[in-house]
Amino acid sequence: MTIPGKIAIMGGGSWATALAKLVLNNADNILWYMRRDDRIADFKQTGHNPVYLSDIAFDTSRIHFSSDINEIAQAADTLVLVTPSPYMKEHLKKLTTDISGKFVVTAIKGIVPDENMLVTEYLHEFYHVPESQLAVIGGPCHAEEVALERLSYLTVGCTEVERAHALANTLNSAKLKTIVSTDVRGIEYSAVLKNVYAIAAGICHGMKSGDNFQAMLVSNALNEMDRFLRVASPCERNISDSVYLGDLLVTAYSRFSRNHNFGSMIGRGYSVNAAKMEMEMIAEGYFGTKCMYEINERYHVNMPILQCVYDILYKKVLPRHAIKQIYDTFL
Amino acid sequence: MTIPGKIAIMGGGSWATALAKLVLNNADNILWYMRRDDRIADFKQTGHNPVYLSDIAFDTSRIHFSSDINEIAQAADTLVLVTPSPYMKEHLKKLTTDISGKFVVTAIKGIVPDENMLVTEYLHEFYHVPESQLAVIGGPCHAEEVALERLSYLTVGCTEVERAHALANTLNSAKLKTIVSTDVRGIEYSAVLKNVYAIAAGICHGMKSGDNFQAMLVSNALNEMDRFLRVASPCERNISDSVYLGDLLVTAYSRFSRNHNFGSMIGRGYSVNAAKMEMEMIAEGYFGTKCMYEINERYHVNMPILQCVYDILYKKVLPRHAIKQIYDTFL
Repeated sequence: MTIPGKIAIMGGGSWATALAKLVLNNADNILWYMRRDDRIADFKQTGHNPVYLSDIAFDTSRIHFSSDINEIAQAADTLVLVTPSPYMKEHLKKLTTDISGKFVVTAIKGIVPDENMLVTEYLHEFYHVPESQLAVIGGPCHAEEVALERLSYLTVGCTEVERAHALANTLNSAKLKTIVSTDVRGIEYSAVLKNVYAIAAGICHGMKSGDNFQAMLVSNALNEMDRFLRVASPCERNISDSVYLGDLLVTAYSRFSRNHNFGSMIGRGYSVNAAKMEMEMIAEGYFGTKCMYEINERYHVNMPILQCVYDILYKKVLPRHAIKQIYDTFL
Repeated sequence: MTIPGKIAIMGGGSWATALAKLVLNNADNILWYMRRDDRIADFKQTGHNPVYLSDIAFDTSRIHFSSDINEIAQAADTLVLVTPSPYMKEHLKKLTTDISGKFVVTAIKGIVPDENMLVTEYLHEFYHVPESQLAVIGGPCHAEEVALERLSYLTVGCTEVERAHALANTLNSAKLKTIVSTDVRGIEYSAVLKNVYAIAAGICHGMKSGDNFQAMLVSNALNEMDRFLRVASPCERNISDSVYLGDLLVTAYSRFSRNHNFGSMIGRGYSVNAAKMEMEMIAEGYFGTKCMYEINERYHVNMPILQCVYDILYKKVLPRHAIKQIYDTFL
């Protein structure tokens, strides 16, 4: 197995587009799976993704596009999965190719619905990919800022650190630095939780709770994340490292964050359904909240902020009542 | 000794005004030392601090004002020092009263200049106040938001935890929650360092480095703070607790932060001197940077962000050159 070898981007959204751009800084060519043929045709004709990060120009002669997931999977050594988590299973269902010998990387910031499994757990269980061939790409990184060529950082996690380095080298450039980690599960969980906390931060922002309260919320969210990870995936980790704290900050404080904006609408008085309808794309954290809530029913970790967001999104509890419940839990 | 007993606020700025308001929510009356008689006269006449947080209405019949520091110090059991750090020594020089039997609280977010000592170290060394009678008030808390009656949190630190609780109870209200700690030195150092990091965040903001880079900067700043504290004042502490991380966030991300605004001007191209002249009040972090740099010459902790801000503010290094030095240190 060559790592990374031939790289395939599996997905057509903004994060997929940003990662494709990064890989093409170093690789001669890539494979790219997208679901819709009309979008592929537009992309080929214009040299731009027609829908996401459309400002980025691509040399399409270096890209082999296909809407046939098996064609792409067969040709690739490394698959980078980067669809929204709710649609991942649907894509993979079409897969008849054996991927157990491939290097499979998840850049999906979400949980597999129904099963409530991490993406790497799901790939291991249902597609028999060995743990040593599974990797994760974590933040802190907004796709929009990669497109703007602002200096950004990514963390690549793999239990085999040499493989993490090999993948990292494919992403590195003057504008993109990578950090390497072995905490695959921790990175996956924190990427989901940070979206939940970004919704909470958005709700408080919408309620005009102020900067003092926001800072309390975010520091307590980091501690809540740490408590959960110590139970659900114990290992030596520094929760203040950028892949955990930095990713939380960029999501909770950034104007690019869909999760924050979704929460903000709810804080300003929109109903959850109205806020969902206002958004072009449903915020990942909306699903993440339910998944993490259900996963934590196995672990019973004290997670008042997760509970608060769950109550607001799924139990119709009014934001001001739910937020009041967390006032006294803060340290 | 009664703790807190009769409380004196020592200083006339915005943080002093916010703390006075908080104490008066619980205490019948307070003592208040201000340097300028004309301001005291205005305050008495209007019921408002004429210069800082002027929207807050005070019942001045419950306040005994004086510009005589000895009169106030003699009458008080608890002194809350809350002047800007560069002027503290000047105020205390006028003190002929023995304060070694008083409970002395610092709400000063700075280092004593020249000596490069923490405020509690200075009070212990030069005014013979025993450690057990020294306390600190930490954030995350902007005076402006206390005035707006937004829910805020403070941390009270004292090596004698019962005394911390007694002081905390004097500040608590429906809009102000207190947390108690024994890490006096850690709180003092982090309150100074966070201003240095807020200047760094401001510089990057001014340079339009983007949200990804900002998040990296802040998470690395927290780790740098942690490294320093482990060497300079080792104890069991969780650096993600709000008194460290939350206070850093509120300063680094808030529009109320003078340090952030000062850095932002420099990032946009103002010279350090021009930025200083633009500000009504020199940002505490300007002095804090030099003090912390000199203190760290004793400890030799790896602090690339502190070094970067020091180089910009005191060595005329251009921001874009200094910031480039920290790119590769980030984790």
